[in-house]
Amino acid sequence: MKKNILVAQSGGPTAAINASLAGAVSYAVKSGEFNEVLGSVNGIEGVLKENFASMKKFENPDNVRLLKQTPSSYLGSCRKKLPDDGDVYDEIFEIFKKHNIGAFIYIGGNDSMDTVDKLSRHAKEKKEDISVIGVPKTIDNDLVMTDHTPGYASAAKYIANSVRQLALDTSVYDMKSVIVTEIMGRNAGWLTAAAALANDSLISPVDIICLPEVPFDMDEFIEKLAKVEDKKQTTIVAVSEGICDKNGDYIMSGIKSQARSDGFAHAALGGVGKYIEIEIATRLGIKTRSLEFSTLQRCNAETASKCDIDESFAQGEEGVRLAIAGECGKMVGIVREDGDIYKPHITSFDVSLIANKEKKIPQNMLSGDGFGVSEEFVKYAKPLINGHPDIIYKDGIIDFILRD
Amino acid sequence: MKKNILVAQSGGPTAAINASLAGAVSYAVKSGEFNEVLGSVNGIEGVLKENFASMKKFENPDNVRLLKQTPSSYLGSCRKKLPDDGDVYDEIFEIFKKHNIGAFIYIGGNDSMDTVDKLSRHAKEKKEDISVIGVPKTIDNDLVMTDHTPGYASAAKYIANSVRQLALDTSVYDMKSVIVTEIMGRNAGWLTAAAALANDSLISPVDIICLPEVPFDMDEFIEKLAKVEDKKQTTIVAVSEGICDKNGDYIMSGIKSQARSDGFAHAALGGVGKYIEIEIATRLGIKTRSLEFSTLQRCNAETASKCDIDESFAQGEEGVRLAIAGECGKMVGIVREDGDIYKPHITSFDVSLIANKEKKIPQNMLSGDGFGVSEEFVKYAKPLINGHPDIIYKDGIIDFILRD
Repeated sequence: MKKNILVAQSGGPTAAINASLAGAVSYAVKSGEFNEVLGSVNGIEGVLKENFASMKKFENPDNVRLLKQTPSSYLGSCRKKLPDDGDVYDEIFEIFKKHNIGAFIYIGGNDSMDTVDKLSRHAKEKKEDISVIGVPKTIDNDLVMTDHTPGYASAAKYIANSVRQLALDTSVYDMKSVIVTEIMGRNAGWLTAAAALANDSLISPVDIICLPEVPFDMDEFIEKLAKVEDKKQTTIVAVSEGICDKNGDYIMSGIKSQARSDGFAHAALGGVGKYIEIEIATRLGIKTRSLEFSTLQRCNAETASKCDIDESFAQGEEGVRLAIAGECGKMVGIVREDGDIYKPHITSFDVSLIANKEKKIPQNMLSGDGFGVSEEFVKYAKPLINGHPDIIYKDGIIDFILRD
Repeated sequence: MKKNILVAQSGGPTAAINASLAGAVSYAVKSGEFNEVLGSVNGIEGVLKENFASMKKFENPDNVRLLKQTPSSYLGSCRKKLPDDGDVYDEIFEIFKKHNIGAFIYIGGNDSMDTVDKLSRHAKEKKEDISVIGVPKTIDNDLVMTDHTPGYASAAKYIANSVRQLALDTSVYDMKSVIVTEIMGRNAGWLTAAAALANDSLISPVDIICLPEVPFDMDEFIEKLAKVEDKKQTTIVAVSEGICDKNGDYIMSGIKSQARSDGFAHAALGGVGKYIEIEIATRLGIKTRSLEFSTLQRCNAETASKCDIDESFAQGEEGVRLAIAGECGKMVGIVREDGDIYKPHITSFDVSLIANKEKKIPQNMLSGDGFGVSEEFVKYAKPLINGHPDIIYKDGIIDFILRD
């Protein structure tokens, strides 16, 4: 009897993680190599609870297409990190055996690749006949080895186009103003850097980008801003939620502990964007607004990158292909050919080289003054946000497919 | 010699106001009735400064198409309200004469229709040979007489689909949570009400809508929420920025003056959504987040409603048609045929019946409990958000056309 394949998703939702699921499930169905395709609900937690969903409805290509455009995680998510050692591994593999699982595909970010690494080590040690494969996903784009991660480009496109449209909105009145946009990414600035993609020959609204890779100093920032805004009507500042001071402490931890000691509920404080807004308005006396893109930046499927959605789908397919080939402990990824034209190739890496590492923006992609990115970054990121998927709407409302 | 036609835009930017401009300018060009098509920069202020832009580039249909998808106001905007009487009127009509203006088309909201009303009264009194015509525009949908206003439906579609995607994003973890979304519209709740359009047979995330039309009481709100969230994993609350207490005072004015007297800079406080978030988290102990859609809700052209963009364009055309017919003191508008199928007709109204009035949501479109809308509202709003315009991107970035 053929074995079953189990897929699961983990970590924060994105606009593309279901495209990888769609790729994996439809390839598993088409391959004819598996008895049944199952999904684990809420990642590895669903495995431990034996909470499995049938994926039978994805034998219908219309449903695969809908899954490809449904944002967030069809199978739910978890943030569980497995211990280094313990009974939980025997428990998991017992459950795999009980359900005749021959392959486990885990779609997720850094923590999920740690789970893939640990499970595949256990499988190899105990000579279990099961392929454990990771498929990457994170808007943070912070996984090493692979050129970029599924979900990043759609979020980057959302940031670039949102900033671009905000810039137009802000410039209609005959007065000076500054907008501070706060963007996700606690330790790596890839997504914040994408604000630079809003600039082109027509408009160039983004003048200052503050990244976690560069220590933030308020006095230097205000000095830089004063110079920039002097020459412009509208100035847009893109700030990562994770900017730190020269000691490596998050800017907002200091502010929040001060607020607490002043007896002010720190929940009432906004994020770092709000804090910078108040500093600008107070020190420079310019009309300033701040804006958090919040979770819309990661879950907006309507404006996804076609490049991202197609690559995410293909990486899901590749995960299953590797499982069929009997691989274990691999993560699917992308390498890019050298040269001016974007040519990606899907490949795989040992997951042990990836788990628990973090890829930050390299020095050559940063601008010399510490307040922006270089042309190298733009060359890297621009091809990824290309193309617009055809979205299915029902009476103006984006259509989804959900678990029963 | 033929006369010139002057067009201008005023009030807050939207995703559709340039579609009306595109309609007006392209119709004026095609008609052959005018010597030249001019644009006034920054509304009526541009008239007083004689700051006129040539619209010659819109003889090229490709540029008209780009203008149709460019959000914000191509000609800039102003918030100037003309006085009831005074020399300014003679001044304006002198400028009109100097530039051989035979028609003035003003695209804007309530204040702009006040300007159209005053200018057309003056024109009639002084027997000036000039057509002054208003073309409506406001995401607030608060102009009387017309069925709905250009810009409203695109903003409504943005709200509905954003809320819909946020709901999916929030439901991935196996835990209860509440999201409070703060939505624009200070005195009329039309846009906040559009959150209800996120609900369909697949998901129904929006349970509570707080509108300026209904006095807000925090205790009643918390009681209602406690009942609702008890049965659901994710609860989404849509709150208008303009909700008031039973005395008609904005909820946030009280909070902000309290913060000031506590010596806390009220700029550091978020809006009413943040305030409600903190009350929910404190009183009910549920994980709660708040989110302001901010100006993205009015300027997002990428996700505009095709119905809105096409109707906005057609209303711009109609404005010029009325001017050619020698009308003065009219505002273009839409009437809807009775019946289940949406059948709009473009028409016009005396602008004097519209200026300085405000259309709120009528009682029959509100739900009985004061925390939502009725099926009547859904029937009214649903057809307006239909269809998705083809957007031109350049390397993943939305393309615009801007003034030279």
